[in-house]
Amino acid sequence: MPQPKYARESMTIMTEMVLPNDTNTLNNLMGGRLLHFMDIAAAIAAQKHSNRIVVTASVDNVSFSEPIRLGNIVTMKAQVTRAFSSSMEVFIDVWAEDIPAGIRVSTNNAYYTFVAVDQSGRPIEVPAVLPETDDEKERYVSALRRRQLRLVLAGRMKPEDAKELREFLQIND
Amino acid sequence: MPQPKYARESMTIMTEMVLPNDTNTLNNLMGGRLLHFMDIAAAIAAQKHSNRIVVTASVDNVSFSEPIRLGNIVTMKAQVTRAFSSSMEVFIDVWAEDIPAGIRVSTNNAYYTFVAVDQSGRPIEVPAVLPETDDEKERYVSALRRRQLRLVLAGRMKPEDAKELREFLQIND
Amino acid sequence: MPQPKYARESMTIMTEMVLPNDTNTLNNLMGGRLLHFMDIAAAIAAQKHSNRIVVTASVDNVSFSEPIRLGNIVTMKAQVTRAFSSSMEVFIDVWAEDIPAGIRVSTNNAYYTFVAVDQSGRPIEVPAVLPETDDEKERYVSALRRRQLRLVLAGRMKPEDAKELREFLQIND
Amino acid sequence: MPQPKYARESMTIMTEMVLPNDTNTLNNLMGGRLLHFMDIAAAIAAQKHSNRIVVTASVDNVSFSEPIRLGNIVTMKAQVTRAFSSSMEVFIDVWAEDIPAGIRVSTNNAYYTFVAVDQSGRPIEVPAVLPETDDEKERYVSALRRRQLRLVLAGRMKPEDAKELREFLQIND
Amino acid sequence: MPQPKYARESMTIMTEMVLPNDTNTLNNLMGGRLLHFMDIAAAIAAQKHSNRIVVTASVDNVSFSEPIRLGNIVTMKAQVTRAFSSSMEVFIDVWAEDIPAGIRVSTNNAYYTFVAVDQSGRPIEVPAVLPETDDEKERYVSALRRRQLRLVLAGRMKPEDAKELREFLQIND
Amino acid sequence: MPQPKYARESMTIMTEMVLPNDTNTLNNLMGGRLLHFMDIAAAIAAQKHSNRIVVTASVDNVSFSEPIRLGNIVTMKAQVTRAFSSSMEVFIDVWAEDIPAGIRVSTNNAYYTFVAVDQSGRPIEVPAVLPETDDEKERYVSALRRRQLRLVLAGRMKPEDAKELREFLQIND
Repeated sequence: MPQPKYARESMTIMTEMVLPNDTNTLNNLMGGRLLHFMDIAAAIAAQKHSNRIVVTASVDNVSFSEPIRLGNIVTMKAQVTRAFSSSMEVFIDVWAEDIPAGIRVSTNNAYYTFVAVDQSGRPIEVPAVLPETDDEKERYVSALRRRQLRLVLAGRMKPEDAKELREFLQIND
Repeated sequence: MPQPKYARESMTIMTEMVLPNDTNTLNNLMGGRLLHFMDIAAAIAAQKHSNRIVVTASVDNVSFSEPIRLGNIVTMKAQVTRAFSSSMEVFIDVWAEDIPAGIRVSTNNAYYTFVAVDQSGRPIEVPAVLPETDDEKERYVSALRRRQLRLVLAGRMKPEDAKELREFLQIND
Repeated sequence: MPQPKYARESMTIMTEMVLPNDTNTLNNLMGGRLLHFMDIAAAIAAQKHSNRIVVTASVDNVSFSEPIRLGNIVTMKAQVTRAFSSSMEVFIDVWAEDIPAGIRVSTNNAYYTFVAVDQSGRPIEVPAVLPETDDEKERYVSALRRRQLRLVLAGRMKPEDAKELREFLQIND
Repeated sequence: MPQPKYARESMTIMTEMVLPNDTNTLNNLMGGRLLHFMDIAAAIAAQKHSNRIVVTASVDNVSFSEPIRLGNIVTMKAQVTRAFSSSMEVFIDVWAEDIPAGIRVSTNNAYYTFVAVDQSGRPIEVPAVLPETDDEKERYVSALRRRQLRLVLAGRMKPEDAKELREFLQIND
Repeated sequence: MPQPKYARESMTIMTEMVLPNDTNTLNNLMGGRLLHFMDIAAAIAAQKHSNRIVVTASVDNVSFSEPIRLGNIVTMKAQVTRAFSSSMEVFIDVWAEDIPAGIRVSTNNAYYTFVAVDQSGRPIEVPAVLPETDDEKERYVSALRRRQLRLVLAGRMKPEDAKELREFLQIND
Repeated sequence: MPQPKYARESMTIMTEMVLPNDTNTLNNLMGGRLLHFMDIAAAIAAQKHSNRIVVTASVDNVSFSEPIRLGNIVTMKAQVTRAFSSSMEVFIDVWAEDIPAGIRVSTNNAYYTFVAVDQSGRPIEVPAVLPETDDEKERYVSALRRRQLRLVLAGRMKPEDAKELREFLQIND
């Protein structure tokens, strides 16, 4: 089994300038294009943690509340939160800046999950994650209930077995 | 208030051929690129239902279980399931085909939510959705609990108020 | 020799949103970009009919009468009309929609021809086409004179041998 | 009415390197992508002749006989052949080179037609074309029967009125 | 005149995954594509320093000694070194990683110069740069002779007036 | 050792139309995108001279003085100036045209250097260059001092050994 690694060792910063072809008729970045950017940033973080080829296993619910404009600079910070055997959950935080206007807005965050695979595509074990900061520790713990929600939504876990998820939803059995 | 419309009136079929730049080093379609394709297909369905400019409001949990290969044909069917004032939930179903090999696989499905806006980006009311088939009716009903999950995850609804979601998770109050 | 197949079995629907990089300085879709979209839609239809890799052999005269605008939705329906040994003629019909404006226009149609090939690029026989509807039957019959016109224009058939083409041009020998 | 211009004044040379995303699963340039390249080269030639914004009006039958490989250099030469009021016919000749292998092949030629328009998209008269070389003169003359074929195929001219086309097809009335 | 700013305030990190269309037939990143990436990273740093729209004024000599492979991760760090009225010199440092192989190579560095402009494209004064670290101070000082070299190469300064450049070239007058 | 070749035999003309995704928020061609175009044009010229796969070794200082607008036509002429064992220097001259406005501007020129390599990426000797015109002869001679400047800047030649460079900078030893 591979040596555990610190969460911060997977930190990846990606910066994109919003170009015309990324935008809709309102000149705003299309949601799907941002999901594409985030997937690449998160995949690089998962690669750094595992030193493996990685494939996207899932993306959790993502909300788009702030429009991002043509010419804005999009910055993504991605970092692995926790590993489960061959899979890794990655947290991505996104900001948009209109630099000439001096405006910087937190626009999104998301959790993507990746599986590490060998050259023939078979899953392969990855290092455990060592959280250090309070944020990293909180995300390490809550990774469990997000995983349960993914499994319940995919029909691969019964709701009554999702202990941490049920606690989060403040359910008294 | 606009006239209700049938779910099927928004049906959109989109077909894409997987090109080299869409793939990772295993020659498989990258997850983020597929999320981008699905966003466009779903946005067109939401446009058809509302006859408005639409912006992506959220995407629900999406799982990627089947690799899609370079040269495969990806087919997406998108259809509005239910409307809530200015927002619409769209269901997208995805297949991949290796046509020369005669292989066709159901690879994904997802729910995207869009908001209809006017030219200055302000939300604007959309028609109600009339479901007809059993599938359409089931998705119309379950749209409520998916909406509750989105609101709970976004911290905009208390878990105890998410009645349909709690029933789905088999929770006895 | 492979089993004949129905024309409708090759039916392919492709939908594209016109993005900034597809347009000229008048914000209209460039003709060459549409020819590129149509080629992909038609190639998929030819793949479906033959279950083979296909390569474009020719495109017949295409006229562009209606401008298609930035943000419009382009829908293409492609279907094989007739097969000749290893080649297939595909009919593609194109509509453009400005959905918020409620405008839908028939903009183009075209005939592309494809050759089915094996992995080393050698031509390989394809199934015959079985037309069912009146439109399919009409296109099946007229495929012959379109083929003659292609051969005459390529200098591979003498005009006097192009019987069906001459009849179409209302020529009395 | 604008001053006539020499055919050679519109000469445009365009060179493209075939990149991975331009190719099919056999690593050959896709036909539709080449049609897109040719449209841009031809549009620039039509712009040079007319000093106007131009829009593609039609492309005549194009055959694809030679595969063009990934990494090949594609060279296009485009030149206006004749003008008809606000429209211009452009001849494009295409070569492909595998330079390291020392192979250069003539792969295609085609006729595209463009209409010159003003800023609001209305057709506007263009200069007449003065052919000088034998090739230019031959294409100037034959432009008439190609135009008749376009009009007959578009149902805008009766076959019996297409005098030059009928002569070319060796028809005795 | 705007307030001076620290060099580090303009720090920009950009990460790119090398995709098939970025590579030549040896599957290596094309030099021109890297120059394009670097220009965007450097432009963002110049935007951050000036809070203005910026346009590329020049790039200094760039050498490419290490091949960067398909699937590699390219990381660029860009930071303003010194400002001259409306222009800013930006230093960009580039690494390439083959993460699964655990290889990380310093591949390039370069100096780009940008001019800050207003909405109508007219040059506009930018803040002075305050260097803090030894590296920042060294680059601040040497920016002068790089500027002289640019001016001499552009024929806008006589070699005998390029005092710092001549000293660097160990020239005794 | 391969046969010398004339400089003109490598002449390459490349034409590009500036599309929306090539431009910044002022609707001007981004400098990095132009460097990318120039790299491809120059690489083709180097391929023609050497009949080899080539990789970019360096680009010399490039200045951008004239804005190039969306919709403009960019024409590049590239030609090998001189060869040094396995490397070739290429001169690229760039014009931009707003054809409807009848404006044609010389915008840039640059020197790129390429190395010819075999299939496994090892450098391989190229033909000597035979200059014929006065311009070709001047660039053949001055190639020596540009090479010295590259080597000095890369720290691979001592300034005192750069004889031709020192003469050009009017330095009296």
